[in-house]
Amino acid sequence: MKILMGENTYGKNAINLTKIIRNPDHHELKQVSINISLQGDFETAHKAGDNTKILPTDTMKNTVYVLAKENFTSSIEDFGIFLARYFKQNNPQVSQVKIEITEYLWSRIITEGIAHKHSFISNGNEKHTATILLNGNETRVTAGIKDLLILKTTDSAFKDYIRDQYTTLKETDDRILSTECQVNWEYDSWQLNFTELYNAIRTTVLMTFANHKSLSVQHTLYAMGEKVLQGNDPVKRISFIMPNKHHLLFNLEQFGIENNNEVFIATEEPYGYITGTVTRE
Amino acid sequence: MKILMGENTYGKNAINLTKIIRNPDHHELKQVSINISLQGDFETAHKAGDNTKILPTDTMKNTVYVLAKENFTSSIEDFGIFLARYFKQNNPQVSQVKIEITEYLWSRIITEGIAHKHSFISNGNEKHTATILLNGNETRVTAGIKDLLILKTTDSAFKDYIRDQYTTLKETDDRILSTECQVNWEYDSWQLNFTELYNAIRTTVLMTFANHKSLSVQHTLYAMGEKVLQGNDPVKRISFIMPNKHHLLFNLEQFGIENNNEVFIATEEPYGYITGTVTRE
Amino acid sequence: MKILMGENTYGKNAINLTKIIRNPDHHELKQVSINISLQGDFETAHKAGDNTKILPTDTMKNTVYVLAKENFTSSIEDFGIFLARYFKQNNPQVSQVKIEITEYLWSRIITEGIAHKHSFISNGNEKHTATILLNGNETRVTAGIKDLLILKTTDSAFKDYIRDQYTTLKETDDRILSTECQVNWEYDSWQLNFTELYNAIRTTVLMTFANHKSLSVQHTLYAMGEKVLQGNDPVKRISFIMPNKHHLLFNLEQFGIENNNEVFIATEEPYGYITGTVTRE
Amino acid sequence: MKILMGENTYGKNAINLTKIIRNPDHHELKQVSINISLQGDFETAHKAGDNTKILPTDTMKNTVYVLAKENFTSSIEDFGIFLARYFKQNNPQVSQVKIEITEYLWSRIITEGIAHKHSFISNGNEKHTATILLNGNETRVTAGIKDLLILKTTDSAFKDYIRDQYTTLKETDDRILSTECQVNWEYDSWQLNFTELYNAIRTTVLMTFANHKSLSVQHTLYAMGEKVLQGNDPVKRISFIMPNKHHLLFNLEQFGIENNNEVFIATEEPYGYITGTVTRE
Repeated sequence: MKILMGENTYGKNAINLTKIIRNPDHHELKQVSINISLQGDFETAHKAGDNTKILPTDTMKNTVYVLAKENFTSSIEDFGIFLARYFKQNNPQVSQVKIEITEYLWSRIITEGIAHKHSFISNGNEKHTATILLNGNETRVTAGIKDLLILKTTDSAFKDYIRDQYTTLKETDDRILSTECQVNWEYDSWQLNFTELYNAIRTTVLMTFANHKSLSVQHTLYAMGEKVLQGNDPVKRISFIMPNKHHLLFNLEQFGIENNNEVFIATEEPYGYITGTVTRE
Repeated sequence: MKILMGENTYGKNAINLTKIIRNPDHHELKQVSINISLQGDFETAHKAGDNTKILPTDTMKNTVYVLAKENFTSSIEDFGIFLARYFKQNNPQVSQVKIEITEYLWSRIITEGIAHKHSFISNGNEKHTATILLNGNETRVTAGIKDLLILKTTDSAFKDYIRDQYTTLKETDDRILSTECQVNWEYDSWQLNFTELYNAIRTTVLMTFANHKSLSVQHTLYAMGEKVLQGNDPVKRISFIMPNKHHLLFNLEQFGIENNNEVFIATEEPYGYITGTVTRE
Repeated sequence: MKILMGENTYGKNAINLTKIIRNPDHHELKQVSINISLQGDFETAHKAGDNTKILPTDTMKNTVYVLAKENFTSSIEDFGIFLARYFKQNNPQVSQVKIEITEYLWSRIITEGIAHKHSFISNGNEKHTATILLNGNETRVTAGIKDLLILKTTDSAFKDYIRDQYTTLKETDDRILSTECQVNWEYDSWQLNFTELYNAIRTTVLMTFANHKSLSVQHTLYAMGEKVLQGNDPVKRISFIMPNKHHLLFNLEQFGIENNNEVFIATEEPYGYITGTVTRE
Repeated sequence: MKILMGENTYGKNAINLTKIIRNPDHHELKQVSINISLQGDFETAHKAGDNTKILPTDTMKNTVYVLAKENFTSSIEDFGIFLARYFKQNNPQVSQVKIEITEYLWSRIITEGIAHKHSFISNGNEKHTATILLNGNETRVTAGIKDLLILKTTDSAFKDYIRDQYTTLKETDDRILSTECQVNWEYDSWQLNFTELYNAIRTTVLMTFANHKSLSVQHTLYAMGEKVLQGNDPVKRISFIMPNKHHLLFNLEQFGIENNNEVFIATEEPYGYITGTVTRE
């Protein structure tokens, strides 16, 4: 029985780049982390240690910093598309390029009601992400939001589920619903106003979460996906990863005190883990 | 030579509590993590395994959830003072109680320009902290900000420092200054409007960072401390821990390209680590 | 255009379970973290909030602890197969069950040359993993090693690679090679002596890494995969994720000192990221 | 009221250094992370931005790599003492130098019963630490163990503690005791065989933990400290930080099944937190 090299990729991860755009009246700050991953004709590299088709990952890193100067001027989606094409065109041995960009978000500090022209405060954990997959002539662009931590204190129920001999969970009409959400949506084109779309989709996700009468995490997931697809034609499909950040009612009754949905234990583990894709016919 | 039990403490850490205050027109959400630490007459517990003076840490946890219902209605400073007194008064074997509270910050989601009445989004990594130290009749209240990530793209220099045979750093008139800051300040009383003071101090820290012409991290640290003390009489002293989040100029010149303070490598390690306390005479 | 619910899963993650097996002459300690993920007929749960086909994730958690008592007596692979079948047989609405188990490894403390009968020390970060995928009547069993941190101080070269205008990396005949490796291999049966196979495969991975004359990470990856497949018939294919933990030669020459591969900077980011599958024809 | 600069320190953290010692028959691998912290006459740096007494932290980093070549040949304690003296002697403006070194531990890979001459596997999370405090002519040397994760499945009780209206914990004669321990001990000299002492102290800690009939975490803490002081004259005092890694009995009884100390829930938070110092008269 013969042994074969199967699917394989290589590249550089965590290329951490900061760019300042010095406009006359204020600075823009872009902080990103970039992963590059190549597929192609690398069988002899594996089997014989022949590196003649290997572009070193150190060179990928240098290339990103050089290209950022002239070409990272707008969205991470646009810069990712530029990078993917650069590596594909300059490396005939490569069949597929994947570029992943995570953008850390900053706001200008407000001093006396005005955004300061060159001082910034982090927006926190939430990140904007983009993945570009360039394969042959096809360019697939996926954008997303990562680590979006949201919570609602009411309008969330969970009941009428299966009961068996190991059921101890109590049905509820009113619980805390919280999730540290990851959202990814795929566009039907690589020529779009990505920044405008990102802002519109993020607003729809937040508003739907806020206003939905939730009967389960799944129910809210679908509602958010449906609204995004209804309102944004260039979105082909949207996926959610929604870990359930449980806030459990503390048992005050054992001490003769009523707990009217006031005092909760926040727990990390174990946690419900719900994923789903909403798509078009 | 005799062997002795020296200083010792015990308690419960990471009591994670969420409280909802259900106002008629909107909900308030408080999410905190509480550490309790006791000192006292625990020599026989150590030397003989005698637990008769030990309040179990599990009971401390239960107590916090019970007391939160009626007594966690305003600031973490006030709830911390209440908890410290409760444990001191109910445990004569205890000489000192320390309560540490970390508050995770949330904002109401804005939908169509209006703050939603019961849906929230995380403010991110930044936290509000409080430490209460109750020893005999003395109550020391320290408040703080943790994980405050800030950055300025100009008005920061570093030059005229010591040079020796191992110096390679270049002097600069214009660099990125960034820090993930921890600030702690001690109050001169336990009867204050802690929320109002916290907001005023946080604003002063941010505005001073934004507007200062920095000649070093130390220079900015002192300026922030001085402004807080000048503007807030109840603050006795203020301490800063300011790790330097380096953003290093990428060497584009090696490729024949100019880098006009545009493209930087963000690095995590190693990092400068600057601490200092600003105090009153 | 119609909107559809696409692929979706739900379940409980991080069910952290410790089991003691009290043999007469010594105790066995098993510490695991279990993820359960179900696929099936859940369209109405998403679209209408109908939970009548939803087994709550809280019940999944209870079920795992109950079943562990009688059925978690040997390998994590065997317990995972048992769990997958249990959830499939008791839930006709479910088409696929995935069970992931991560085992934290412990050794008995050695005192005076003898393994203590009931006291343990952690083996560290390295973990044994297993994934069971039960779909219809097909049971796929994958085992693995996670966070295996290994390093060799010589017998590792990297040269003869592509050079372009952004190349700055120097060719080397002798560098440090280090990786925090993740290995996963798929078995061709669910009725095997999984513990024996795991131990044999782990030994082969380590010995091949130690003895190989490496010309690149890819070259070592293939060598390890080839040896495992050659020596273990029940292994259908094996995959490696090998982040390159760079140790960069520190430039002592700028201070007039020679660095004979002695002093290195250990860096975390950016890092080379190499993945590959070795398979059979 | 005058504003003053109080206590302050600065330095470089996380100087990550790997050193290979190439003995003829095998290599030695040392991987460490070093923090340097200086105190001294830095008032004008804070108040006026005057850097003329500031040794840049970047230069500290370069110095460490240079000095490691000739002077990091034995223990981290000895290298730390060398570094502290170097920075003190070359910087008259400095009154105190603190050097903290964390050593990541590696073992040579065993192949066919023999330790490989140049291939290594990580020992895991456990680290060896050292802190050198040089103040005037006084050199204080503290060594330690960090992230030592240990567990015993029996010989651990907890009972006869205080009971009040919020007590729900059940007394037990037989529970799991586990802790991720941090140990620090201070030597009475800076001229000792630090490696030999470290190994002896670590063995005593492990053996005492294994063999002790524990009545509480505090009881075990004292027993370990007492044994180390009894057996090692150069140790002046020893401190322990012992977070309680709870493994809670799962309630099988609610399902009509007995749990004979077999099946446990491992929890991370909240956790008991016990600290104590054992010292000499």
